[in-house]
This record gives sequence, C-alpha cells and structure tokens, in this order.
Amino acid sequence: MLGKIALEEAFALPRFQERTRWWASLFAVDAEKHAFEITDLTDQRIKYMDEHGVGYTILSYTAPGVQDIWDAKEAHALAVEINDYIGPFLKQHPDRFGAFATLSMHDPQQAADELRRTVTQYGFKGALVNDTQRSGPDGDDMIFYDGPEWDIFWSTVTELDVPFYLHPRNPTGTIHEKLWAKRSWLIGPPLSFAQGVSLHLLGMVTNGVFDRHPNLQIIIGHLGEHLPFDLWRINHWFEDVKKPLGLKETCKKTIRDYFAQNIWITTSGHFSTPTLQYCINEVGADRILFSIDYPFESFKDGCVWYDRDVELNPIDYKKIGKENARKLFKIGDYKDADA
Amino acid sequence: MLGKIALEEAFALPRFQERTRWWASLFAVDAEKHAFEITDLTDQRIKYMDEHGVGYTILSYTAPGVQDIWDAKEAHALAVEINDYIGPFLKQHPDRFGAFATLSMHDPQQAADELRRTVTQYGFKGALVNDTQRSGPDGDDMIFYDGPEWDIFWSTVTELDVPFYLHPRNPTGTIHEKLWAKRSWLIGPPLSFAQGVSLHLLGMVTNGVFDRHPNLQIIIGHLGEHLPFDLWRINHWFEDVKKPLGLKETCKKTIRDYFAQNIWITTSGHFSTPTLQYCINEVGADRILFSIDYPFESFKDGCVWYDRDVELNPIDYKKIGKENARKLFKIGDYKDADA
Amino acid sequence: MLGKIALEEAFALPRFQERTRWWASLFAVDAEKHAFEITDLTDQRIKYMDEHGVGYTILSYTAPGVQDIWDAKEAHALAVEINDYIGPFLKQHPDRFGAFATLSMHDPQQAADELRRTVTQYGFKGALVNDTQRSGPDGDDMIFYDGPEWDIFWSTVTELDVPFYLHPRNPTGTIHEKLWAKRSWLIGPPLSFAQGVSLHLLGMVTNGVFDRHPNLQIIIGHLGEHLPFDLWRINHWFEDVKKPLGLKETCKKTIRDYFAQNIWITTSGHFSTPTLQYCINEVGADRILFSIDYPFESFKDGCVWYDRDVELNPIDYKKIGKENARKLFKIGDYKDADA
Amino acid sequence: MLGKIALEEAFALPRFQERTRWWASLFAVDAEKHAFEITDLTDQRIKYMDEHGVGYTILSYTAPGVQDIWDAKEAHALAVEINDYIGPFLKQHPDRFGAFATLSMHDPQQAADELRRTVTQYGFKGALVNDTQRSGPDGDDMIFYDGPEWDIFWSTVTELDVPFYLHPRNPTGTIHEKLWAKRSWLIGPPLSFAQGVSLHLLGMVTNGVFDRHPNLQIIIGHLGEHLPFDLWRINHWFEDVKKPLGLKETCKKTIRDYFAQNIWITTSGHFSTPTLQYCINEVGADRILFSIDYPFESFKDGCVWYDRDVELNPIDYKKIGKENARKLFKIGDYKDADA
Repeated sequence: MLGKIALEEAFALPRFQERTRWWASLFAVDAEKHAFEITDLTDQRIKYMDEHGVGYTILSYTAPGVQDIWDAKEAHALAVEINDYIGPFLKQHPDRFGAFATLSMHDPQQAADELRRTVTQYGFKGALVNDTQRSGPDGDDMIFYDGPEWDIFWSTVTELDVPFYLHPRNPTGTIHEKLWAKRSWLIGPPLSFAQGVSLHLLGMVTNGVFDRHPNLQIIIGHLGEHLPFDLWRINHWFEDVKKPLGLKETCKKTIRDYFAQNIWITTSGHFSTPTLQYCINEVGADRILFSIDYPFESFKDGCVWYDRDVELNPIDYKKIGKENARKLFKIGDYKDADA
Repeated sequence: MLGKIALEEAFALPRFQERTRWWASLFAVDAEKHAFEITDLTDQRIKYMDEHGVGYTILSYTAPGVQDIWDAKEAHALAVEINDYIGPFLKQHPDRFGAFATLSMHDPQQAADELRRTVTQYGFKGALVNDTQRSGPDGDDMIFYDGPEWDIFWSTVTELDVPFYLHPRNPTGTIHEKLWAKRSWLIGPPLSFAQGVSLHLLGMVTNGVFDRHPNLQIIIGHLGEHLPFDLWRINHWFEDVKKPLGLKETCKKTIRDYFAQNIWITTSGHFSTPTLQYCINEVGADRILFSIDYPFESFKDGCVWYDRDVELNPIDYKKIGKENARKLFKIGDYKDADA
Repeated sequence: MLGKIALEEAFALPRFQERTRWWASLFAVDAEKHAFEITDLTDQRIKYMDEHGVGYTILSYTAPGVQDIWDAKEAHALAVEINDYIGPFLKQHPDRFGAFATLSMHDPQQAADELRRTVTQYGFKGALVNDTQRSGPDGDDMIFYDGPEWDIFWSTVTELDVPFYLHPRNPTGTIHEKLWAKRSWLIGPPLSFAQGVSLHLLGMVTNGVFDRHPNLQIIIGHLGEHLPFDLWRINHWFEDVKKPLGLKETCKKTIRDYFAQNIWITTSGHFSTPTLQYCINEVGADRILFSIDYPFESFKDGCVWYDRDVELNPIDYKKIGKENARKLFKIGDYKDADA
Repeated sequence: MLGKIALEEAFALPRFQERTRWWASLFAVDAEKHAFEITDLTDQRIKYMDEHGVGYTILSYTAPGVQDIWDAKEAHALAVEINDYIGPFLKQHPDRFGAFATLSMHDPQQAADELRRTVTQYGFKGALVNDTQRSGPDGDDMIFYDGPEWDIFWSTVTELDVPFYLHPRNPTGTIHEKLWAKRSWLIGPPLSFAQGVSLHLLGMVTNGVFDRHPNLQIIIGHLGEHLPFDLWRINHWFEDVKKPLGLKETCKKTIRDYFAQNIWITTSGHFSTPTLQYCINEVGADRILFSIDYPFESFKDGCVWYDRDVELNPIDYKKIGKENARKLFKIGDYKDADA
C-alpha cells in the first residue's frame, strides 16, 4: 500500500553518535548500521520510505531519552535542544515528516509549556514520552503521570488537540533489579516494555485521568502492550464482579469505553496477522494505526508484512494503513496520500 | 457439557476462618459467602459441580498461601498441614476430586520431597504454587524457581510425571510499593497477577529450565497471563532479530516450541470467547484446559460461558472441556467422564 | 443494546391469511403462531421490539411473494397492492417503522417506476426483491437482473439513492427438480437460499452491473450467503491467476472492492459469533448490518445473541447494531436512537 | 515445512495430450505449460516437491475425467485404464507418491469392485470422484451417490478403510444452462464448484449415508466448499428450530458431529490465512489437511503460503501440514516425514 503513515519512528542527536553506537552494541545485530540509521534523517530514511510505500513519518526522539535523566534541569535542556533540532528540519520536508515533541516530565507545567511551544512554533503533531520519568537523587524514583498534579499537563494536551504517545523505556533503578537482573533477556520487547506501559496506562485509567480529560487521546505501540488481551478480564472485575467503591468514583466508564474513546494502538514491532485480527475485534479498526518502530525494527519487516501478508477488507486496511492517522494528526497533503 | 474437569479451584483451612473472612472483605462482594465457599469442600461445591456439569475438580490451597510466609519453617509446616488435611479427604470422593500439593518453596529439596510424599501417599495430581516465595527477614525478597538451584526440584517433578501449576499471588514488599501503591485497583486480576506469572514463566524459559527438563509440564491460568498475545513478538526478538549469545546456549528451542511441549493454559477467570479462539490459534486446543477459579469466580460464570457461549467444533470443545485434562492428569473414571 | 435497527423483517397481507397458514405448515414449528406473527404489524411486533431493544424495523413483504408470480400483470398488481397497504401504515409509526418496496421484476421500467412512486409517495427506504423473478408460460424461467436490460432499473435505484435488498427465494421449476427433489431438506436456509443469491449477486458483479452503476448499494442477508468465505478464492482466480479477457472489460475492480463499495451484509438468520468476526475481517464492520429475519427467526434468538453473546469492541458494535443502518437509510429520530 | 503431504494433485493420461492442451486453453494462462505439468509425473513434479518441501503426493486423475462420460461402459474402461497406468508407477516411488482410484460411478457394485481391486492390487489410498456422474442418453442426467442404492459402495469403502475425496466438476447439461450460461465466469473455482460439492455432500448427510456408514471418511477440498461458513446456520435449522420428522430419522447426529467424525477438508486452492483460522474454529485442526490442487494452482502459491504466511501454533501446524494425512492414509516412511 502506498502512502502509509508511520508514527513510532526514532531519531537520535548527531552529537551523541558515540553513545548511540555504544547503546546499539547492547542489542543491535549491526550496531554500526543501527547508529547510522537512527541518526540519519533523510539519506537512508527517505529511501526506505520510498521503497516500502511509507508516505509520511512522524519522528520522535529515541528511548529512553529525556526520561532517563533524573536531573530536572538537564532533562529540560535536552528536550528543548532536541525539539529545536527537529523542528526546523520539518519545514524542509512538510510532505514527508512530522514530529512528536520530546518532553522532560519532571514538572507538569513545564512539560505543558514546552509542548505548547513546539506545537505552536513547529507544528508538532503531539508528544511522545518514554514511560515514567526517572527522578530522585539516584534516578531510582519514577514519576507517573496518572496523579492529579498532571491535570494541568493533560489539559494543555487536550486544549492543543494533539495525541500523546506513551512509549516504553527500560526498567531502571534498584527497584527493578530484583525482578529483571537474573532474567535480563526479558528486558525490552520480550516483556518489560509492555509491563511498564500497561501499568502506566491502566494507572491513568483507574486514577481517573480520562474522566477528567474526556477528549485526551493516548497512543500506545506494539498492538497495545498486552492490554487488548485482557479487556474482558479487566472489564469483568471492574464491571461484572463489583466495581470497588473508590474506583467507581474516579473511573466512571468501562475499560472498553476508554479504549473506544481515548486510546489508540499501533502495529509497531508486532507484525502478527492473527494478533492484529484479534485486536480489530477487541479495540476496532478505527483505533489502530500502522507503525514500524524503525530502526529497532526494519522497514522491510513492517511494510512487507502489511503490504503482502495482512489479509483484511480494503476499508479497514486503508484506515489502519493511513486514513486513521491522517485524520487523527490532521495531516494535509503528503506523498501518495490518496494512492 | 457434562463431565467437565476444573483445576484452578481453591480451598482454605477451616482454622483460618477468621482470617479468610477478613481477606475476603478486601475484594469479595459478599465476604461471608466467599469465606464459606472457599472453606467448604463438599456441601456447596458438589452442588455447584452437579448443577453446572463439572465432573471432577482438582483442589488447591488458596493464594497467596504458603508463598506469603517468609519464615521457612513455618511455611513448610503449613504446607504439610494443608496436604495432610486434603489428602485423606480425596479418598472419600475419588470420582469427584483430586488435589495439587501445597509446597513451601524455600528449599528445593524440601519442596521436592514434600511433592513426592503427597503424590505417593495421597495420589496428588501435581503441585500448585503461588508465584514467587516471599523470603528474607521482612518478607521483601522473592524466590524465583528459574535458577539452576531448582533443578533438583524440577527433576523430581518430571520424574513423578506430574504437572506444576504456577498460580499468581499479590505483589508484596517495598519493591512493589512504588509501582502499585497508587494504582492499587490494578493489583490482582486486572494486571499484577499476569505481570508476576508471565515474568516468572519467561524467566524459566530464558534461564533454560525447559531445556534441562524437557518433559516438564507447567500450567498457567487466565488464558496464559498475557503471554499468548506476545508469542510473535517474543519469537521475533529471539529468533528473527538475533538470539543473543548467552540466551542461545541456555534456551535452544523457540518460545512457540516451549508452549507446544511444556506449557498449558487454562480458562480460569477469563471467559472470553474471542480470546479463547485467539489462544487456540496461538497455542493450540491441545494445550488448553477448562478451569473456573472458584470461588473467586462463580461456577455459573465459568460454566454457562463454556456450556452456552463458546462456539467451537466438537473435537476441540471436548479436548478443552475435559479430554486434555483427563490425559494429562491420568484421571480414571469420574462422574460423566464419557457423557 | 437499545435502539437496534432490523431490516430483513417480513410481513404478509391479511387477505392471504389462509395461504399463509398453509405455507407456514410446511416449515414452522407452530404454524398458527407464525401466520399470526407475519400478518401482524403492531400488536406483537412492537411488543417484541420493545422487549428486545429494537428501535426501528424496515418491513418487507415475505418471500417468495411477487417473485413467485410468473404472470407479469398479476405480479405488478400484487406489488402495487402490497405497497399501498404498507405505505400509509408507516405514517402512523414514523419513529418505529420503514419499509422496502415490493416490486414485480418482469419489466425493468415498470419496476423502476414503482420504486420511484413508493420512495416519493411513502418514503420507502429502498426495495427488497426475492432473487430471480419466475416467468415463462409455466413459471419455469427465471429472470436475473444482471443483464444490460436492467440498467434502466439500476439507474433509478441509484438516482433515488436507496439500497436494494436481494433476498432468497425457493428454487422452483423443472430446472431445479433434479437437484433438490431428493434432497429437499436442503431447500431454504440450509443451502439453496445461499446458492441462489450468491449466484445472482456474483452474476451482477461479473456482468458489470457495479461498474456501470458505481453507487449502487446491494444488501444481502445471512452474513453474506457464503460469499465472505470465498473472497480470497474468487479474488485469486480473477486477479492472481488471470482475469479472463472478457471479464476484465466489464468488471474492472476486484471482488473485494465491490464488497467495500457496493455490497452490505446483514446478520439475519446467522447468529454466529465466530462467523460474524470472520466477516468483520473479510468485509469490515462498516459494511455489516444487524437484522433478525423475523418471524422466520425469533426476536429472542437474534437479539439475545447480539445483546448478550457478541463480544466486540463498542465502536463496531454500535455500527453494526444501528449506526451503519441509520446512515445508509437516512433514518431520522427513532426510539432509543442515541441510547 | 519439510515433508508436507498433498492430496488433491492431478495428472492426465499422455494419450489425451491433444485434448488436455485444448482443455487447458479454456482457462490456463499458459496452456502449454499446464498440459505439460498435468501429464508429467516425475520430471517437473518431483522438482517442485523438492523445491517446496512436499514429501509425499497422492495423485488423482484430473476432473471432470470419468464423471464426464455418460456411456457406462466407456466410463468404466477409462477408469480401469487410468488405474492400471498409475498403479505400477507408484511402485517406482513408494516414498513419494500414492494414488486415489479413478472410478466410473454408473454402477455402485462396479465402482466398489474397482476400488477394491486398486486398493488390494496397487495399495491405492482411496478414491477421488468428480461430483455427480453424468448419465442418460445425452449426458443430461446426474447420478448422486446419496441414495440407498449406493450403500453397497459405501460399505466397501469403509470395509477397505480408505477415504473418499469428493472433488468438483463443471456443471453440464441443459439443466445448468439457464443458471450458468450468462454468468460463465462463475463456472469453476469462483462459484459452481463449491455449489456442486456442497449440495452433494449435504445430500449425503441428510439422506443418512453417514448414519448408515458411521466410519465413512469423506474429504472435500477448497477449505470445505463453503460449508464451514454455514455450520451454525445449518445446525440452527436442523437442531434449534425443529428437525423435520423425516430428517430426524435418517440423520440422527448434528451437522457438527458429521464434520467431526466423517468429513475432512483440505486447503487446496484456498490459501487464505483468516479462512483457515476460521475453519480451525469451525471444524478443528484435527480435520484439516494441507493440499495444493496442482497444476491448477502452483506449488509456489500453495507452499509459500503455508511455509511463510500461515501463523499458527506448531502443534496444529504439523497436524495440518502432514501428521493428519499420514495417519488417515497410513503412509509409511517418506521423504522428510519426521523433519
């Protein structure tokens, strides 16, 4: 399919080239190639896009990024630097690229202000944040965005009418050591990513964030970080068995309502046809967005899967491949938009 | 369907009636009823079984049970007490009940010995253990069973040729406080149970337990504690992308192989037809077992769902409802076995 | 779900009460009840609608109806009588009932004119026709509507911007005797209905009706009369293998395109959850409409299934239950429309 | 997957080369190639098998074959000729090929005798027959095998303990002209094949053939010729609504029982993953057999689909790919049987 839109697509700052290479060496088959691809914006990336029928990409700074910096000032400074690096770049390729804002999440007001600035100044399409913000003197603490102190931030997100992508990051700090140290193969895509994001997102649900911000739109990747699998079970315990008293007050709708009204899932890194079909049943094709997760995943794996293997009616196929994203992000004309 | 077999079905000791009632008050709609049902063995339970077509039940001591006791001696003493309570009871109803051994998991050899004793002496059908064993001076530590020190235990399990049910328990100790305290609605069925068991089971996979014990049979409930949803993604990172060097040596098969050869999932507490269908695709009807999770779930919810709502070919329907369990546990004649 | 819309719902003329009773005796468990229910418009019908959450019904004359009359004049006279019987009735219950026109299909121009009259005069929602029109001196011939002589009719249908429901009727005449006489249990819902309609609809596709009338909207019942099952295979032979020369010229799009742009399927008489899910994959929730097929099917079977058993995300659930139909038929306010 | 078994794979007699070429010109993209492939037994065929991981093929004479010959003597003579052509060939490649008997179906006893001869003499794996047998002075009549006069034949089939493949053939004679002449694109795979076989097989079901021959095993291709799609609906009319009196006596089990105990479906010519998944739900992986339909379909299309695109648990994957067929046909060692 031509004109696909992809939205969990990472870049890194050129000045971190060294660190990027080291980081890549921890997981990438070809660290050199990975470091090049993630730093590159146009050379290789546009070639891949053209080769694999991706018309438009929304770029985001790579994980763990700013969420890994527990010093608040340093975190904010880096966020601003990243945004001012990618913002001007967009103007050169308005028909191929958009971007998500990078945000330090130490201070809700500051995060809100930086989001507003980047949406206003550069036309950013929303924000992408890597799960909890590390904080505390040793980076051992984690800031979740599901408490009332974040209402000021979520109000800005909905006022600006842009989505917020809740992306995973690695478990860090002593708190996670006991869980993951002896089973480190599970850190990342095999398990920890989904456990982190699903906890965070369900925290937002049960702490009433969506009740207080009914227009808020959150995106999660990897076909929903396990959550579509358990919608029945969650709903069963919250609705059928007995919605606990306190919960009943902060979280008035059902889990299926929140998924229908506030949550989007993308195909990033989960190129499984039966899983996509199951998700279409559980959350609906109107709430699913194609994505790759480049360069952690290859354009080829993601696009050949979608172009060749997914066997789906043409209506939903187009929605997931591009139409949903185009509407959600109000993307104007772009390459092969109507192909 | 008559003659169903159910195997995640809890009981409590009568002498803990008070504590059971208090515990039930934390989550049950009707704590009194719950406390009665879980302590009762035959009065209400057999009525429900007869009413809802369950021919045979494998009983297990309720969670968190012995895994909550961080004093090793106390834990073992309680395990022995529980086993000696339920063991003789089985003889009165050999055509209706079997039992899983309760084990203290402080010491692999001791756990192995107690399992052997109960299988030999009482004909227990295997063991059911509630995720990690609390340990350490304040109960803050967790013992996982995925390290080489547990080989002696797993050898005994396979030698006895009985399955091992890895059941969830609540996250406890300071380690989990930061994650769950402010999102306590997610403790239990909505999220924490699956996160605990999936971590533990994948720890066993990646640490090579199944490679060292290729005949080991592990059962997990709730349609697989999220794992069927991510088999593609796990497989993709372990096989397609690059199996990391160390992992390649301890874990030689694919995640799909382990699910085909060593892992069983039950329907306990997850009465969702599309999810069952999806699991049939991902793990196969030959590896799925009907279960309820009584009295945390009602016989009615579990059985009316299976009897009335599940729309499945008769071959797989019988396998999941009873035939798989009958073979796996070598259950002789029981009520409506061949109905 | 309150406010469901149903659209394959039959009525009969009171003056045929005798004949209706005889006809019912051929297949109905309780012929008397069936004859009453199909002749009744408001007494029992509205009770059922209220009891089972159907807000709005589009009525149609029962099969085989006018398509069974091979005398052209007689057929047309009956069609007019039926339309003039049901048309005025609609005005009494505009928030509960609409109707499909009944048409004699002996003459394309006459059918077009009668459709125009009923849409204009009574606000009919389209037409429902029972497969081929019997014709010829002994009723042995069958008129299909897939030839160029019907373009004048289809032009009127699209000009009026109303859908056309292609409903089954029994195989009749010597032509079918050899096939069905010794396997008469297969006449009707078990097989012949779907074979008739699928042949007719695919005839329209391959003879280019939808290419010449790209806005034409055809509805078929029973989850698509087998066709969703074979979209891959049909597409494979027409597109992958080789689209035959002649076909390439009259039928320029793919079978999946026609299903996405011109064809709708309803749930009438096919209350199967896995089949519905499969159809959602093959044709899309945007193209599926709830229906019952009352009184050949009971309100209870159709509605309890949809209300209790179908496990589907709320977005698609509402589309299929009412929203798609409301848009397609431009239905204004009706009972529980927004419930 | 290595060692796949395929069983709807056609060959033609070399002496009909001319006719084969003409026939191929009616539908094949490359008639010359088709005529070569279908006549060839070992040159190209074994190359394809090796290239695409097919370990064992059960050969059958191409359709319409003997079922197209309405002269009974001529039909039988040709059947014998075909069997005596392919029978000795099998001995040269016992680890790569088996065969289905070709039968004239004019006379049940004669058909039974010829089946017995070929099974005994050559080790044939059963029979493959192309829908109804043309008969009558002009070939306008059709012999169905669902009447009591065929009991003698079915008794022999079950006594020999071999399956019977009911394969489609083109609709012929005046009876079908009115239906298909003006919609000839639908003759064959797009529609008529499935309509013919589904009528014939359901005729066998409703006329009690499986009740009188409870061990009879019938195979149909193309993922079940539409029937899996309507099992709910057929069952609903036969069991839920009201099983008609006469039917109740000849056909005592449910349609789902017959599919579980007597009917097999193959993937021949229907390489659709969602359809396969749906069939796994409706008939069960234990009743599905891989097949290609070579040379009407290409090895590449069938095998690349199964090897690369089908995303299924390894247990059922192996069953469908080879294990079910190996058991059903009692195939001994063959190439890559245990790969």
